Amino acid sequence: MTHLRTTPAETPLGDSFHLYDTTLRDGAQGEGISYSVHDKLATARLLDSLGVGFIEGGWPGALPKDTAFFARAATELDLRHAALVAFGSTRKAGRRADQDPQVRALLESHAPVITLVAKTDRRHIERALRTDVAENCAMVRDTVRFLRAEGRRVFLDGEHFFDGYADDPDTALRVLDAAMAAGADVAVLCDTNGGQLPGRLADTVAQVIERTGFRIGIHCQDDTGCAVANTIAAVEAGATHVQCTGNGYGERTGNADLFAVIGNLATKLDLPVLPPERLPELTRTAHAVAATAHVSPDRHQPYVGAAAFAHKAGLHASAMKVDPGLYQHIDPDVVGNASRILVTEMAGRASLELKCLQLGLAIQDTEAVTRAVTRVKRLEADGWSFEAADASLELLLHEELADTAAGANGTRRHPQAFTPLTYQVVERRATDDRVTFEASVRLRVEQSPGAPGATSSPDGGCPSEGGAGEAGATSEGEGPVDALDSALRRALAPCLPWAAETVLVGHSVRVLDSASGGPAVTRVLVVTRDAEREWTTVGVHTSAAAAALLALRDGLTYKAVSDARSRAKTKATVPNP
Amino acid sequence: MTHLRTTPAETPLGDSFHLYDTTLRDGAQGEGISYSVHDKLATARLLDSLGVGFIEGGWPGALPKDTAFFARAATELDLRHAALVAFGSTRKAGRRADQDPQVRALLESHAPVITLVAKTDRRHIERALRTDVAENCAMVRDTVRFLRAEGRRVFLDGEHFFDGYADDPDTALRVLDAAMAAGADVAVLCDTNGGQLPGRLADTVAQVIERTGFRIGIHCQDDTGCAVANTIAAVEAGATHVQCTGNGYGERTGNADLFAVIGNLATKLDLPVLPPERLPELTRTAHAVAATAHVSPDRHQPYVGAAAFAHKAGLHASAMKVDPGLYQHIDPDVVGNASRILVTEMAGRASLELKCLQLGLAIQDTEAVTRAVTRVKRLEADGWSFEAADASLELLLHEELADTAAGANGTRRHPQAFTPLTYQVVERRATDDRVTFEASVRLRVEQSPGAPGATSSPDGGCPSEGGAGEAGATSEGEGPVDALDSALRRALAPCLPWAAETVLVGHSVRVLDSASGGPAVTRVLVVTRDAEREWTTVGVHTSAAAAALLALRDGLTYKAVSDARSRAKTKATVPNP
Repeated sequence: MTHLRTTPAETPLGDSFHLYDTTLRDGAQGEGISYSVHDKLATARLLDSLGVGFIEGGWPGALPKDTAFFARAATELDLRHAALVAFGSTRKAGRRADQDPQVRALLESHAPVITLVAKTDRRHIERALRTDVAENCAMVRDTVRFLRAEGRRVFLDGEHFFDGYADDPDTALRVLDAAMAAGADVAVLCDTNGGQLPGRLADTVAQVIERTGFRIGIHCQDDTGCAVANTIAAVEAGATHVQCTGNGYGERTGNADLFAVIGNLATKLDLPVLPPERLPELTRTAHAVAATAHVSPDRHQPYVGAAAFAHKAGLHASAMKVDPGLYQHIDPDVVGNASRILVTEMAGRASLELKCLQLGLAIQDTEAVTRAVTRVKRLEADGWSFEAADASLELLLHEELADTAAGANGTRRHPQAFTPLTYQVVERRATDDRVTFEASVRLRVEQSPGAPGATSSPDGGCPSEGGAGEAGATSEGEGPVDALDSALRRALAPCLPWAAETVLVGHSVRVLDSASGGPAVTRVLVVTRDAEREWTTVGVHTSAAAAALLALRDGLTYKAVSDARSRAKTKATVPNP
Repeated sequence: MTHLRTTPAETPLGDSFHLYDTTLRDGAQGEGISYSVHDKLATARLLDSLGVGFIEGGWPGALPKDTAFFARAATELDLRHAALVAFGSTRKAGRRADQDPQVRALLESHAPVITLVAKTDRRHIERALRTDVAENCAMVRDTVRFLRAEGRRVFLDGEHFFDGYADDPDTALRVLDAAMAAGADVAVLCDTNGGQLPGRLADTVAQVIERTGFRIGIHCQDDTGCAVANTIAAVEAGATHVQCTGNGYGERTGNADLFAVIGNLATKLDLPVLPPERLPELTRTAHAVAATAHVSPDRHQPYVGAAAFAHKAGLHASAMKVDPGLYQHIDPDVVGNASRILVTEMAGRASLELKCLQLGLAIQDTEAVTRAVTRVKRLEADGWSFEAADASLELLLHEELADTAAGANGTRRHPQAFTPLTYQVVERRATDDRVTFEASVRLRVEQSPGAPGATSSPDGGCPSEGGAGEAGATSEGEGPVDALDSALRRALAPCLPWAAETVLVGHSVRVLDSASGGPAVTRVLVVTRDAEREWTTVGVHTSAAAAALLALRDGLTYKAVSDARSRAKTKATVPNP
């Protein structure tokens, strides 16, 4: 059974350097984190697949969910790289280790590695634990010895080590010694209150190594904003075991972020802490860990954030055109991330030109670029965001550049697929407790020479023969956006038959509180796909229904415009027979 | 005119240590930040009021918004502590400084202090700037000399200094020397790509100080997650000028967070960087800076985050009962923050007991505590959050503890103020483009012996004489929650006249994407007040209208319950005559 492994497998540094993850225990103590057992199993698989050496799964016996996790892990979790660790405390004062229910729960978790937490600060021993240093050391010694005799590998977490060592170094070291003499093989120095800065912390780590010769680990909280730096400083001072959490989740301000620590160890200290070829999985894993924790990823997170290699200032964007290395500390591919040029109000000509280049749009008119920047700026001030909605941005650029681009690539200023005239969304609960959503729309359907509908003759059901006219429909849906999409498609079916080639894949709704005290606006992102591709569009309005309609309209218009462009390209490159 | 000040005023360290804020320039380059001129003026006032020494307002001449900011700052901004700084580049290669439009724009900004950015990395000079080191130094020298002759104080931002110094130290130092010899008085070493770690960065700072004797500043980006630690390490190595941004806003992963840097300098290095008595304004200022940037505050931010002193694990909460200092690195009052005990699934008995203590609820029944924890746990898993909605949490605890608490403080298991039977919300756009919201509700009104309504005889309009019965109404509103609130109040007016003593102060709506692929749920927070106090309640449902009704109902029920408790207390303490 792979979960009986006590050392990391198939990692370049083997047991000589420990990448120890405690997302499932210390991370779970973060405000806003609440894992189900299923989430915990999924997170463990993600971290194992990335290649961490140890996964601390929880505190069996103390939290029922964690007891359940270890029970299921024993049969369901097949770890390839990592050893599974259970966290717990020593026997209680005055009790025998082999009869302490908490210690027995650790054994019964079947975890091959146990991390025991012990107090190393005299003040905590006396005031929180209400015992003395001698009994505290005996608790540590007895518990480690018992677990070792039962065949488990044991690490010791020295709680409040740095504060304790500063106040009374002999007591702090006595506790570590009690554990190591009894068979623990890593003494982990914990900055539990998170008050350390790197310089002093590194000095303490170096002193402890010099005085004891123990294998030292490090565990940092982020209360000074220095958890990652403290962890790296400890490694530079000789620690060979780092405890981190995915995305820095954890009590209060959180823990050292596993992904930033891996990025720094691998790319700055040249320590190959992951199995070969796994470093490019860093970004994907970080986002998956966030999704499994039901938390939005932090866009500004080092190495893995969506903005970590995003360039906004015009100065940066123009240098990026010369050499991407000029404004990036590493090549983002190394950690599976990517550079992005942000098209925002701050975009100079350079940012926008790079974006057009990516989209294959020709630019001849400098005025058009200025118009596009101005429009993006105004829309973003109103709550729009094009960072995710590439298709809406592409439509905007097409519109602004159309006059000049038409000659170059055959596109023309495109009309929207339709114009909403009136709508109504009803959310209703009847006495049977069922909530229903019903939308009615009335539209003017537009037809452009470039739209696919123009190449097939209009369906008989279309209200006007010129390809444009009014249409309307009513439909139910699972929510307001679904209902609107459904009514829209029903209304459009006779006039724009190609609309049926697309489906609504999903949508997200965000209510943006007004900054100025005015009404809140709703931003709706809509994902649409056809047989070949998937695209995202955006709508913003004080009315949620209006925002959804704008996003849905862009979703259909994008289909029409990009199909027309494909046809134009085919026409231009395939010679007539 | 106070904005002509070139040194910090009324700060303990005066000009000997510079707290230099660049939120309005470098912070504005962060993804998601878009300041109006009005926002910039408001942010400058907040930072000045906190007591920073320098406020970099933007890049006049390069960004029209920044030119406008300096024009308005000259008449509208009355800074008490800070000197106002304009950021810009040196003259272009081959041009005269006094004829360079960009340099003239700096002068015309009327900013008394100018920070010039100059390239110090030979590779950037040659590849991005396409000039040579000699001309680059001449550009720096001429521009500094010209601005000094015009009476401005000048700082030099050495862009890419650390990368440049590692590659070619002589070139990097030559550029600094050109500026300082011409009259600049701080050479700021910038980690522009953010790739530094504290140890090596501190070594470089110490070397530069030893080799040049210059006054050194530090400017760090957060690409390794070490910007705060790097800033502190530079100060420990001798830097006396720190450039930061509020909440760490900035390009890519952002800059060193001003508030974490202040917290560390003030409480860890004992540097009194703020005017006396301003440190407790740190948390309030950080939140106001976030609000002015239209960004949600980071709950997990060091020192100032809502979770920075929040305790979730049962172990921590129980130690907090003994001594709050045991799990906190500083007293949160020092920075204007506060401890919080989070009542969540992880809450042991201790967390919940502390919360009850805060609420003045007596606990006799251990079963009731277990029931409350289970219920909180289940609700939070469904998307509820009681962290902000204290009134909803109090109602929940009342309910669970009522059986046992009744004897102790006179409260009873309370009924909700009403039960919704059916509802309908219509969002409609007519052809005149006006969007309207109309809500209809049908309710069963409840009356409890503890509710205020029981003490006055029911109004004639109430549909039932027993104090309970059905009622309904329809009303319009500015949005769906407003419309529901208005319909609700109209329906309740005849039966629960005391409801009119309360008003809806505000609400926020958040759509939570489903983690499991099920439908998204909407969480509505509602703030209600009466003449004496304000309280927040929460509702969660897949139907936004249902979520709003749950939150609105708790808002009214809370009024009934707390009024009943006040009356019970008065009765108990005032002896009958």
